[in-house]
Amino acid sequence: MKKYNVAVAGATGAVGIEMIQILEERNFPVNEIRLLASKRSAGKKMTFNGEEVTIQELTHDSFEGIDIALFSAGGDISLEYAPSAVKAGAVVVDNSSAYRMYDEVPLVVPEVNPEAAKSHKGIIANPNCTTAIAAVALWPLHKAFGLKKVIVSTYQAASGAGAPGMNELIDGIKAGIEGKEVENKVFAHPLPYNVIPHIDKFQENGYTKEEMKVTWETRKIFSEPELAVSCTAVRIPTLRAHSESIVVETEKEVTAEAARKILEQSAGVKVVDNIGENIYPMPLNAAENWDVEVGRIRQNIIFGSKGLEFFVSGDQLLKGAALNAVQIAELLID
Amino acid sequence: MKKYNVAVAGATGAVGIEMIQILEERNFPVNEIRLLASKRSAGKKMTFNGEEVTIQELTHDSFEGIDIALFSAGGDISLEYAPSAVKAGAVVVDNSSAYRMYDEVPLVVPEVNPEAAKSHKGIIANPNCTTAIAAVALWPLHKAFGLKKVIVSTYQAASGAGAPGMNELIDGIKAGIEGKEVENKVFAHPLPYNVIPHIDKFQENGYTKEEMKVTWETRKIFSEPELAVSCTAVRIPTLRAHSESIVVETEKEVTAEAARKILEQSAGVKVVDNIGENIYPMPLNAAENWDVEVGRIRQNIIFGSKGLEFFVSGDQLLKGAALNAVQIAELLID
Repeated sequence: MKKYNVAVAGATGAVGIEMIQILEERNFPVNEIRLLASKRSAGKKMTFNGEEVTIQELTHDSFEGIDIALFSAGGDISLEYAPSAVKAGAVVVDNSSAYRMYDEVPLVVPEVNPEAAKSHKGIIANPNCTTAIAAVALWPLHKAFGLKKVIVSTYQAASGAGAPGMNELIDGIKAGIEGKEVENKVFAHPLPYNVIPHIDKFQENGYTKEEMKVTWETRKIFSEPELAVSCTAVRIPTLRAHSESIVVETEKEVTAEAARKILEQSAGVKVVDNIGENIYPMPLNAAENWDVEVGRIRQNIIFGSKGLEFFVSGDQLLKGAALNAVQIAELLID
Repeated sequence: MKKYNVAVAGATGAVGIEMIQILEERNFPVNEIRLLASKRSAGKKMTFNGEEVTIQELTHDSFEGIDIALFSAGGDISLEYAPSAVKAGAVVVDNSSAYRMYDEVPLVVPEVNPEAAKSHKGIIANPNCTTAIAAVALWPLHKAFGLKKVIVSTYQAASGAGAPGMNELIDGIKAGIEGKEVENKVFAHPLPYNVIPHIDKFQENGYTKEEMKVTWETRKIFSEPELAVSCTAVRIPTLRAHSESIVVETEKEVTAEAARKILEQSAGVKVVDNIGENIYPMPLNAAENWDVEVGRIRQNIIFGSKGLEFFVSGDQLLKGAALNAVQIAELLID
């Protein structure tokens, strides 16, 4: 079996660390792993498959001999270094938003549009975390019942802002208990015991970029450029795994039972829906798992027989980022 | 000016304590205040307008001479003792859900349907907290633009389950920091760093009772028995003030600017909507305030010129409970 030289750019970040672990856990056929990060981290060591690997500084010359480069170091880094990786002959799987809406860059959720990955010209984009988590639940419903309208409200964890976001929440919680002032640098306001309806920059239409990403990216992944999707994206004081409350209007008649049956057979989805036993999706259970939990599946009382309402929880560092990126890499190998 | 004898049944609960304070703060014309609670609390003292008041045990004979009885001790207590209060000549303002859907019991949000209070037959019901908070924002929009569909997702604080709910969250957070097990008795699952899409009992249609209350009660308060309202009610690890993400489809054309102008002139609403300055509704600011914060007002991209999306935060112990009850009592006096 062929083995591949894989680079991880942003190896020390919250998503990078998960990428390395997932490559291990899924037995990705790695020949050489090259861990790239900022100058500050260069020289430090991480382990991969039981062996120590020294982190190298990310430069334009980092990609010689690399087959696949997983990028997760922010949009600016991707814009600067991904072209160098492509020039060196690597295929880039980019977790940032930098290239997602480029026409020539496929945006891929392997459970939805794996074939799109084949048309890449060197770069494949990994979607926004909220979009990827919703997509695995929405796609099988779209195929079966046709989605007409999708209305999303999110419950997003601090780790959406990486390790610094998680640390700021934990430090703030501790400061509050000790009666000290709660500081905020990562988030626009203190997050402990708060709700912040603001993720990423505001756009001219009053939505945030995070909210519009759910609209734009879902349309691109589904190849449905007119799909009616709206989102309110909200940061809440949880550490890991995003949740989403989703209402859909469908083209065809749908029941909760029919939807449940479809979702139970869908890749990447775990139906967690037994209200009699108080079983439904929750970040506490969804965190650190690959599948997106889907539950609270019920006929929506507004759209009636052509409407559905449900709740999803998924680990945004995994399906929302690192896992999806590795799954894309798996599409590239034989 | 006439002064009234006012009883508070459930005086030691989270809402009861707020009721007493609000009667003070709004200078309600109180002659005698009678604080009623369970046998366990009887004999303890609370202060009202600077004077010590001894808590009495709630019995069927507690209401002699009382003009207005504010009940907030749960539905079972209301069902048992409210009739005794009415028999003794008092008007009951009941914060529980026990009587809300009775045809002969008005369900009142003073900013929406104050006239309904006049038709009472001894009992006036105070709505569910989530409903009341949404109603003050939805009603002026309904009058101006006609609401056709209302889709709500909530972010509800631990205090929706009273003081025990708040304590369980704080104790759980502390236990987690100390590496101890996080216990849950009030909530179906541990709440720290979690999201629980389950408030009140599940109904046959898959919605919870909390969710259906938003539908049923909004219809009754608005006198719109067919209004299309759906809700997903979610508990999150905040202490106080509920938030709600709301999407509406309107009968008439609407713009964010027109909606903002209407809401700025509406009683009980505080427009908190300056995204350029990162200003929007948040529990951190809405807690302990009377007005419901409304912001993130924008045209919904699905319903276009006949759709609106916004975010509200309101203190569910105040507008969602104690404040609204005292406002109803104010409608009863000259």
